[in-house]
Amino acid sequence: MPSEIRPFEEIRMLFAALPGPSADSVAAVRARDGELTKPPGSLGRLEEIVEWLAAWQGAPQPAVERPLVAVYAGNHGVVAQGVSAFPASVTAQMVENFRSGGAAINQICKAHGVGLKVYELALERPTQDFTQAPAMDEREAAATFAYGFEAIEGGIDLLAPGEMGIGNTTSAAAIYAALYGGPASRWMGRGTGVDDAGLSRKNAAIEAALALHGPHLSDPLEIMRRLGGREIAAMMGAITAARLNRVPVVLDGYVVCAAAALLHAMTPDAIAHCVAGHVSAEGAHREALERLGKKPLLDLGMRLGEGSGAGLAIGLIKTALACHRDMATFASAGVSGKETQPAP
Amino acid sequence: MPSEIRPFEEIRMLFAALPGPSADSVAAVRARDGELTKPPGSLGRLEEIVEWLAAWQGAPQPAVERPLVAVYAGNHGVVAQGVSAFPASVTAQMVENFRSGGAAINQICKAHGVGLKVYELALERPTQDFTQAPAMDEREAAATFAYGFEAIEGGIDLLAPGEMGIGNTTSAAAIYAALYGGPASRWMGRGTGVDDAGLSRKNAAIEAALALHGPHLSDPLEIMRRLGGREIAAMMGAITAARLNRVPVVLDGYVVCAAAALLHAMTPDAIAHCVAGHVSAEGAHREALERLGKKPLLDLGMRLGEGSGAGLAIGLIKTALACHRDMATFASAGVSGKETQPAP
Repeated sequence: MPSEIRPFEEIRMLFAALPGPSADSVAAVRARDGELTKPPGSLGRLEEIVEWLAAWQGAPQPAVERPLVAVYAGNHGVVAQGVSAFPASVTAQMVENFRSGGAAINQICKAHGVGLKVYELALERPTQDFTQAPAMDEREAAATFAYGFEAIEGGIDLLAPGEMGIGNTTSAAAIYAALYGGPASRWMGRGTGVDDAGLSRKNAAIEAALALHGPHLSDPLEIMRRLGGREIAAMMGAITAARLNRVPVVLDGYVVCAAAALLHAMTPDAIAHCVAGHVSAEGAHREALERLGKKPLLDLGMRLGEGSGAGLAIGLIKTALACHRDMATFASAGVSGKETQPAP
Repeated sequence: MPSEIRPFEEIRMLFAALPGPSADSVAAVRARDGELTKPPGSLGRLEEIVEWLAAWQGAPQPAVERPLVAVYAGNHGVVAQGVSAFPASVTAQMVENFRSGGAAINQICKAHGVGLKVYELALERPTQDFTQAPAMDEREAAATFAYGFEAIEGGIDLLAPGEMGIGNTTSAAAIYAALYGGPASRWMGRGTGVDDAGLSRKNAAIEAALALHGPHLSDPLEIMRRLGGREIAAMMGAITAARLNRVPVVLDGYVVCAAAALLHAMTPDAIAHCVAGHVSAEGAHREALERLGKKPLLDLGMRLGEGSGAGLAIGLIKTALACHRDMATFASAGVSGKETQPAP
């Protein structure tokens, strides 16, 4: 790439030519759906899901044979402000736990036949404390965004980005506040379960960051590098790479949607290929989803991260596809259709 | 059983000694949950589900190794009133479809490792048209209730009753109206997709039934035999048999919950072992669930019956249990807990 182009400009250029949905594939899915042995529309959102897969895979017979949860782990300088109930060392410990199969996301992926990859993002070197300085410089932020592209390598057909990072709900809350306005308290929650004193420190840290970076927060990529963590940057890249490669995306919760919200702020079309896997119990995730125009598939009071809600949603998505693909038609099963009158 | 006892009295006697939940098992589940590598409470309703399984299986380590969807198929005399978009012959045709693996519930059960049994309830002999006479006499209603007990044979550990029966949303709406009052229109929906004229006939049929049977509708078992179908009676029996044998139950949609509502009207405790698998798009299912005190696990706009929503919910339940059973603990994984402070 030409060296005179600044890193963020290279990212912006990606959004000029995003592939759109395939109307023909959706029409093919609808036609088959009308022949299946059930009243029209009776599978509700399961029917919508298959249309969504077809639209964004560009396939009249969509497939979910190689779904992937890609978990990005990052450490955050803002943890120095006492914003989390857990020490920063837990991020690396949980990465080990993912690798040895002991976390919730391992069980969820195993239950639903979903692949799992874990990407460590320089855990030994946390981002800068964003109450004091930008979390990342432009070069690092752009490189981390680009690193997110690795998620789609290997021929996956469905992607759910997930995250782990002590302190990252503070980063996400700051991002939402920067994008949508209002006080920090409106956008934040207790994360892993911080107590009242910790919540007060979290609030102060976000307000301090907004005051420090305020003049630079009209550009979503500036918000990403100043208030984001590396996992936010990498997930933005992963979601974008998926779009460019016709891989639909299942959004997880509060932190993943902060990455999606930054893309949406660049251009709403940037997350048109994404479905909301669930609504989190954390902070203002429900309001964030409304702003993104996404209706969650699941609402189970989860607030774990790791891609856990999205992983569960992939179970639903696979089942929706199995119904569409394997159900009998009225003709093949000899079932009378809606118009048919009973024999006398 | 002594011959002088009337059939319904035998049923009533079952509710005198229902086994309760196991508090010790719930305590054991909670203790383990607190040690798992996740913030406390962060799996939301997945944690509640495991406690519910433990409570009603009476097991500190609950299991879902042999879950079953039991589909009951019945035909309804009230179809003569033109209340459905499909001919009554579809009930038997769909039973064949279940047997040959072509229906939605076959795919859902296959996807989530759930057993499926189909019980035909004298399809060649529909119940009486309840706008003209009671649907069943007491002897037949009680025998069908007892037949529902077969569902728990074979050592299942989780039960989801499902149903198929052209005309049975008319029966369910009449049951809700009889139990909870208000006009028929408040409780009915379009079922398989009846048009406006059909909906008007459905409304008239329910109103006629309420007028005819009104003086006899203070007893839930009388409501069952007068307005119910055989599948309603059998599902009431299946849910009761499950309770007596410590098998938790996942409720499906609008018609299944009419059976649950009749049990609940006999004594609210009769469905304490039931969780609501989903909320249907049909009629007033949401309000029915509120009256039953059940919060649905899924809300996907489905209205198919067959146990389809409950079958999907079993996928969630199995995953919840896998997380509880197979996740690492803070100690086993070497992850710092919430109280631990970071090393200096």
